[in-house]
Amino acid sequence: MLILHGPNLNLLGSREKSIYGSTTLAEIDRALERRGRELDVAVQSFQSNHEGVLVDKIHQAAGYSDGILINPGALTHYSYALRDALAAVGLPLVEVHLSNIFAREAFRAHSVISPLAAGVICGLGPHGYLLGLEALVRIIREKQGDQN
Amino acid sequence: MLILHGPNLNLLGSREKSIYGSTTLAEIDRALERRGRELDVAVQSFQSNHEGVLVDKIHQAAGYSDGILINPGALTHYSYALRDALAAVGLPLVEVHLSNIFAREAFRAHSVISPLAAGVICGLGPHGYLLGLEALVRIIREKQGDQN
Amino acid sequence: MLILHGPNLNLLGSREKSIYGSTTLAEIDRALERRGRELDVAVQSFQSNHEGVLVDKIHQAAGYSDGILINPGALTHYSYALRDALAAVGLPLVEVHLSNIFAREAFRAHSVISPLAAGVICGLGPHGYLLGLEALVRIIREKQGDQN
Amino acid sequence: MLILHGPNLNLLGSREKSIYGSTTLAEIDRALERRGRELDVAVQSFQSNHEGVLVDKIHQAAGYSDGILINPGALTHYSYALRDALAAVGLPLVEVHLSNIFAREAFRAHSVISPLAAGVICGLGPHGYLLGLEALVRIIREKQGDQN
Amino acid sequence: MLILHGPNLNLLGSREKSIYGSTTLAEIDRALERRGRELDVAVQSFQSNHEGVLVDKIHQAAGYSDGILINPGALTHYSYALRDALAAVGLPLVEVHLSNIFAREAFRAHSVISPLAAGVICGLGPHGYLLGLEALVRIIREKQGDQN
Amino acid sequence: MLILHGPNLNLLGSREKSIYGSTTLAEIDRALERRGRELDVAVQSFQSNHEGVLVDKIHQAAGYSDGILINPGALTHYSYALRDALAAVGLPLVEVHLSNIFAREAFRAHSVISPLAAGVICGLGPHGYLLGLEALVRIIREKQGDQN
Amino acid sequence: MLILHGPNLNLLGSREKSIYGSTTLAEIDRALERRGRELDVAVQSFQSNHEGVLVDKIHQAAGYSDGILINPGALTHYSYALRDALAAVGLPLVEVHLSNIFAREAFRAHSVISPLAAGVICGLGPHGYLLGLEALVRIIREKQGDQN
Amino acid sequence: MLILHGPNLNLLGSREKSIYGSTTLAEIDRALERRGRELDVAVQSFQSNHEGVLVDKIHQAAGYSDGILINPGALTHYSYALRDALAAVGLPLVEVHLSNIFAREAFRAHSVISPLAAGVICGLGPHGYLLGLEALVRIIREKQGDQN
Amino acid sequence: MLILHGPNLNLLGSREKSIYGSTTLAEIDRALERRGRELDVAVQSFQSNHEGVLVDKIHQAAGYSDGILINPGALTHYSYALRDALAAVGLPLVEVHLSNIFAREAFRAHSVISPLAAGVICGLGPHGYLLGLEALVRIIREKQGDQN
Amino acid sequence: MLILHGPNLNLLGSREKSIYGSTTLAEIDRALERRGRELDVAVQSFQSNHEGVLVDKIHQAAGYSDGILINPGALTHYSYALRDALAAVGLPLVEVHLSNIFAREAFRAHSVISPLAAGVICGLGPHGYLLGLEALVRIIREKQGDQN
Amino acid sequence: MLILHGPNLNLLGSREKSIYGSTTLAEIDRALERRGRELDVAVQSFQSNHEGVLVDKIHQAAGYSDGILINPGALTHYSYALRDALAAVGLPLVEVHLSNIFAREAFRAHSVISPLAAGVICGLGPHGYLLGLEALVRIIREKQGDQN
Amino acid sequence: MLILHGPNLNLLGSREKSIYGSTTLAEIDRALERRGRELDVAVQSFQSNHEGVLVDKIHQAAGYSDGILINPGALTHYSYALRDALAAVGLPLVEVHLSNIFAREAFRAHSVISPLAAGVICGLGPHGYLLGLEALVRIIREKQGDQN
Repeated sequence: MLILHGPNLNLLGSREKSIYGSTTLAEIDRALERRGRELDVAVQSFQSNHEGVLVDKIHQAAGYSDGILINPGALTHYSYALRDALAAVGLPLVEVHLSNIFAREAFRAHSVISPLAAGVICGLGPHGYLLGLEALVRIIREKQGDQN
Repeated sequence: MLILHGPNLNLLGSREKSIYGSTTLAEIDRALERRGRELDVAVQSFQSNHEGVLVDKIHQAAGYSDGILINPGALTHYSYALRDALAAVGLPLVEVHLSNIFAREAFRAHSVISPLAAGVICGLGPHGYLLGLEALVRIIREKQGDQN
Repeated sequence: MLILHGPNLNLLGSREKSIYGSTTLAEIDRALERRGRELDVAVQSFQSNHEGVLVDKIHQAAGYSDGILINPGALTHYSYALRDALAAVGLPLVEVHLSNIFAREAFRAHSVISPLAAGVICGLGPHGYLLGLEALVRIIREKQGDQN
Repeated sequence: MLILHGPNLNLLGSREKSIYGSTTLAEIDRALERRGRELDVAVQSFQSNHEGVLVDKIHQAAGYSDGILINPGALTHYSYALRDALAAVGLPLVEVHLSNIFAREAFRAHSVISPLAAGVICGLGPHGYLLGLEALVRIIREKQGDQN
Repeated sequence: MLILHGPNLNLLGSREKSIYGSTTLAEIDRALERRGRELDVAVQSFQSNHEGVLVDKIHQAAGYSDGILINPGALTHYSYALRDALAAVGLPLVEVHLSNIFAREAFRAHSVISPLAAGVICGLGPHGYLLGLEALVRIIREKQGDQN
Repeated sequence: MLILHGPNLNLLGSREKSIYGSTTLAEIDRALERRGRELDVAVQSFQSNHEGVLVDKIHQAAGYSDGILINPGALTHYSYALRDALAAVGLPLVEVHLSNIFAREAFRAHSVISPLAAGVICGLGPHGYLLGLEALVRIIREKQGDQN
Repeated sequence: MLILHGPNLNLLGSREKSIYGSTTLAEIDRALERRGRELDVAVQSFQSNHEGVLVDKIHQAAGYSDGILINPGALTHYSYALRDALAAVGLPLVEVHLSNIFAREAFRAHSVISPLAAGVICGLGPHGYLLGLEALVRIIREKQGDQN
Repeated sequence: MLILHGPNLNLLGSREKSIYGSTTLAEIDRALERRGRELDVAVQSFQSNHEGVLVDKIHQAAGYSDGILINPGALTHYSYALRDALAAVGLPLVEVHLSNIFAREAFRAHSVISPLAAGVICGLGPHGYLLGLEALVRIIREKQGDQN
Repeated sequence: MLILHGPNLNLLGSREKSIYGSTTLAEIDRALERRGRELDVAVQSFQSNHEGVLVDKIHQAAGYSDGILINPGALTHYSYALRDALAAVGLPLVEVHLSNIFAREAFRAHSVISPLAAGVICGLGPHGYLLGLEALVRIIREKQGDQN
Repeated sequence: MLILHGPNLNLLGSREKSIYGSTTLAEIDRALERRGRELDVAVQSFQSNHEGVLVDKIHQAAGYSDGILINPGALTHYSYALRDALAAVGLPLVEVHLSNIFAREAFRAHSVISPLAAGVICGLGPHGYLLGLEALVRIIREKQGDQN
Repeated sequence: MLILHGPNLNLLGSREKSIYGSTTLAEIDRALERRGRELDVAVQSFQSNHEGVLVDKIHQAAGYSDGILINPGALTHYSYALRDALAAVGLPLVEVHLSNIFAREAFRAHSVISPLAAGVICGLGPHGYLLGLEALVRIIREKQGDQN
Repeated sequence: MLILHGPNLNLLGSREKSIYGSTTLAEIDRALERRGRELDVAVQSFQSNHEGVLVDKIHQAAGYSDGILINPGALTHYSYALRDALAAVGLPLVEVHLSNIFAREAFRAHSVISPLAAGVICGLGPHGYLLGLEALVRIIREKQGDQN
């Protein structure tokens, strides 16, 4: 299970806490790992501020991952390259946003990623990641169930 | 905890299964009740095809409910009356959609409710309701924690 | 065969006659019944000013009706709830408007219902209902012919 | 004289006081009645959260009322059904809003009702109703004067 | 009674049958003639792929025809020349489309002809022409009745 | 209390009476003065066809006036200079229009002044000015009440 | 000097006289010829309802004409083919409209031809043609003067 | 006959000659006067860079002028005050522009004045004024002829 | 193999050479014929300034041609009739433009034909036709290969 | 060197200090004069709330000034008359705004003046004027250098 | 000759074959090399998922390349950085897309690169690259011919 | 003090000199350093063509820099990632553009960065950087003054 964090998410917990809260990315990743163990799935987290690095990572994920949980950060709103990478690997996808992107600046209400996602969760803070992981695991297992 | 289902959700499980799946609304409500018990919260579910009835219900909720989990159905896209009712009671709010509204007709990508919600979950089917309930409970408890 | 009349159509024949003519809804319903008998189909007419009541009626129609002839009145332009109800029951659908909605205010030229209809008839006054009934019966019979 | 209050106005005085003030709807209605007596007109007030009920009420008003004073609440922005009902009965119409709808969210600046109204008053709080009643009475009396 | 068929309608029945069906234009014209005889009106059909030829034909129709039934084909969406020709002769006009133009590409939902038509019928296949003829005859007879 | 009349309002009563009525500006000003005396406030009226002169007047008003009642005429729709002047002096503001600007040309439905006003009154003719004065006085007195 | 009249202008004087007046095209052409003689230029008039024929005519004009006076009729609003033909021959161009295209339907306010014209005259009826001819002759003579 | 020149036209002939030519405003005014004498009408010319002064002048024209020939300069594109002044006096109006406003920046293609004008002439340089005067005189004489 | 040239392309090589170059259409057609012989396909070229004639030609092509190479000229931007003709015959289609339509006026960047084409080539001058022919032949042969 | 201040800037330092700061216009003008002396240029400052007066001033500047530093105030957003005046005199132009116009209401982000300016400085308060003067002097000297 | 492949093109042949076909990027590059040898030009291919790396590469190309053949992948639709890099080096440019970008999602129909390209080829699969190379070589040789 | 230069600015002085001038980036950086010394601040300059590298750099700046002077190059128009990075570190920000972005292509007039900046300077060439540095230092010192 690949967890991808887009640009600026490395600053979580230290900046703009009134919007994004005080939990750090490391804490979120640890919580995801724990929840992964409970759900019996291996979880790998990765953050980058580089669109290209995220695209590369998604390509590699095609080889070993069963699904992707992504918070694309600001790339949500314009990175068709990210979108095409996600479309190309075709893995089950859940999109997560910490803040409610529909209650902020107008440009944040449009995601170029969402049409590809199985589901979208936003506004629920770090907890949203855990719910997203749970949802992703369930989607993958249902799919695997369908194929059997 | 009030669970509100908007227009046409009473048909769940019997119609357009390729979009909305085969789980019935009664099954979703039972699952929410079970999850409510696990989370130690009382859950009341209500469905109506009438905007006005939903508005009335929301007004009443102000008296006894700690939060609202809502799937506004098609009212999502135009019911400013529903929006204003939710704004008026000011209860913590989580918005749920069974299907991914960003991967369907263009009009479905715009929600007049979302700017008021704490969070939004969509595309995760009946499971999304359970995640939404979990999130709502967490939001309420954090709030109550803040006040203590 | 269910005939649905949306908001304000109960006033037909007594108000705004220069736009909608002087035939009453009762007269239209009687004419539809007569034409129904000629076409050998049972016809049930129903009018409501309440979106929710129309949605309920459409749901019930799924059980006994072979098709719906609808003049959604002003709901034509915004009621996605009505649209979703019609989509859910999936019955053959013909949409009728008394006046030519393309020759009036700009907002009337957009129907959220039309993409779901088999056909649309507008501007032909009460006569349009009779043509619509005829068309609906033909569509249903062709469909039934196809299945045999 | 019919006074119509749209959705959520029953909560006046108890909710979102920073926007709508602390006067209750009952207090407004009483003030309107008093002012009605001063102006020598009978005043009937009615509130509903149901679009259809408001439409029904408007239809009935055609039989006994000389004019309508309406605060359509959130229906202002999308209810073409309400608009068509008001157009159908053709009574003198004054539209009132408690808050200044041009100084809030963008969607509130558009009223589908205003093109039908004789006049519009907004932002003047409960006092706006009294001014609206006064204006409506004057419009009706001028009209009656013209006809004599 | 002039029946006008716009560009590409000569291919009816031999091409894109899934959209337009398998009835040929000749069959439609024969059916219209038959229905014309039943309705006691002479019917002349004409098809052209040339906007200018259709405009010429409409001008000539002013001399001998009592009304026009038109399926403008793709000219529906941009031919202001056709529109002006129809406006100039001022004959009663019914517009017909075989397919439901509101359920196809976005550009097809806009007709520059509709604001001039008495009525519009779409989505009902070849049958729509017969209904259109019936409607047109009725409109003309009502008009003639009004003048007597 | 400063009453400001924008461009072309000096022609009131002599031109375009079907839209603006036959009352002259002098009559309106006298009526405002009378009502001012009843309400125990001094009223000064001023009309100009010059945006700059109106801006100058507003600046001066900061020194002696408690509120502004303005009918900006056609400047309503584009004069950001007027808007900024009103914002700068920050006096309580009521905007009045003689005709219903929402029932005329599209450009008239947009006011660059309204977002700054406490309230807006339109379509009520000369009577609207009197209601506006009443409202303005009330707003100022409530404010003064608040400060005491 | 080539005078081009677009679609439907052959009907001038016999149809929609309230918009286009009662002068016939033949009368306009005779008047242009007379004015041509006064201005000492040969004038050739040509009308067609066929875009293609007008394009052909423009191409031929390149061989013998010094300028084009055109009333493109409804082609004004969409015929990029006409525009490109006029651009290709590059002759001095004056565009004329009988009615004021800015005071009619919104679509008439946009001309795809105008950006290519030296000048545009509209709303002045048949007289506009004479003014246009005068202007065109002047433009050509100034140009010829410049070259000498 | 009042000739009005809007902002910056006093600079004609000395600035931006590649767009506006080298004729001065005084030369245009003299030519208009000459043409006026030929047409047997008195011509008064007036230029101002002040919107308000132009509005005042238009108001005064109501008393002595039979028509207005206006080049509103840049006010063309936004001065609703000018528009309302012209509408108020209701004199026959011809709008002139020296350059072809449809072949320049996009904002110049929209005139708020044109819908009020009898006719519009643009792109024909100083000559356009003479044609405009001629047209205006003709319009006024036809009108006077109609009234006799 | 049918090669279609739309309006104004007959002027190639003699007009607007800075945009379209100095090669004539006859030269292009000869080059296409030569290349056709090399590719072992028969090539027929046809130019018309008449939309209707092009539509007729496309219909006939259904009988004998394996593919269409089209430069629709200005019809590219609005001729839905051409589009529908091409859709009806359903032959493999390549669209060619001599100039780069994305580097010119805004209206040229939109083609109503492109969504139907297998491929689009633009900006490569006469050479683009040869590449387009090559591509079309390849597409047809691959298709035929697929069917064997 | 002409410094122009548009509408409402005379109130600087006394009104809306949270947006515009507490420095007065006189203080800014004195600072500009001082900086002018340091830069060895004569500086003349002028403020007006009248668009026409500013236009007149710009025309006069053509005679004696080497450049213009302008803060057009609210005229920034709509005064094409100001724009055309600045274009006509063609002097080097620097546009200054005290506040960051891109971080305020949407309408403030659009300047009709900017496309004419050499440069734009905004958001830097009174200091921005000094930087603007410096920039303007530099631009003029570079130009003069180029000409020598 | 530099061949640039944008994001995700490294996956060619292994993913989304129904859209992009089964040829790999290596195969395309080999074919380009072969065609390069036939055309007597050296060809260097480069793919990156990183916008910045592509920009760097373009900068370097200025030193040794005679032209660029680019498939910008998803960067086509938003990378103004790529656009500016291409504009800066100013090399002859041909843009290629494997699929027909005008027959897919709406966002794909807009390229920020196209206005800079000499020509654009799309929808012709891997073959399009070969045609593009051919075109680019021809453009460069014509240019070099012009300079001799 | 961190100076950031976005994509393609490394080419300054060697490419597109008519737009960007002939000063190199190294010369600008040296000038900034000198001005920094005069202003008694340490200045660090950094250029990258990689959005991600710029984001990383901004994050690091949070640790040691007092303010950022940025020319985001083409990222100005779409890089929400850059915007979010700047928002996250919250340092005083001045945005600089060498050319006047309001006098070029339409897409350049919109900056996603500007709403975050204290101030924006554009069109003043390399000199703009020096003014920007001066402004930034002043902003920081005023802020520090406020805190003491």
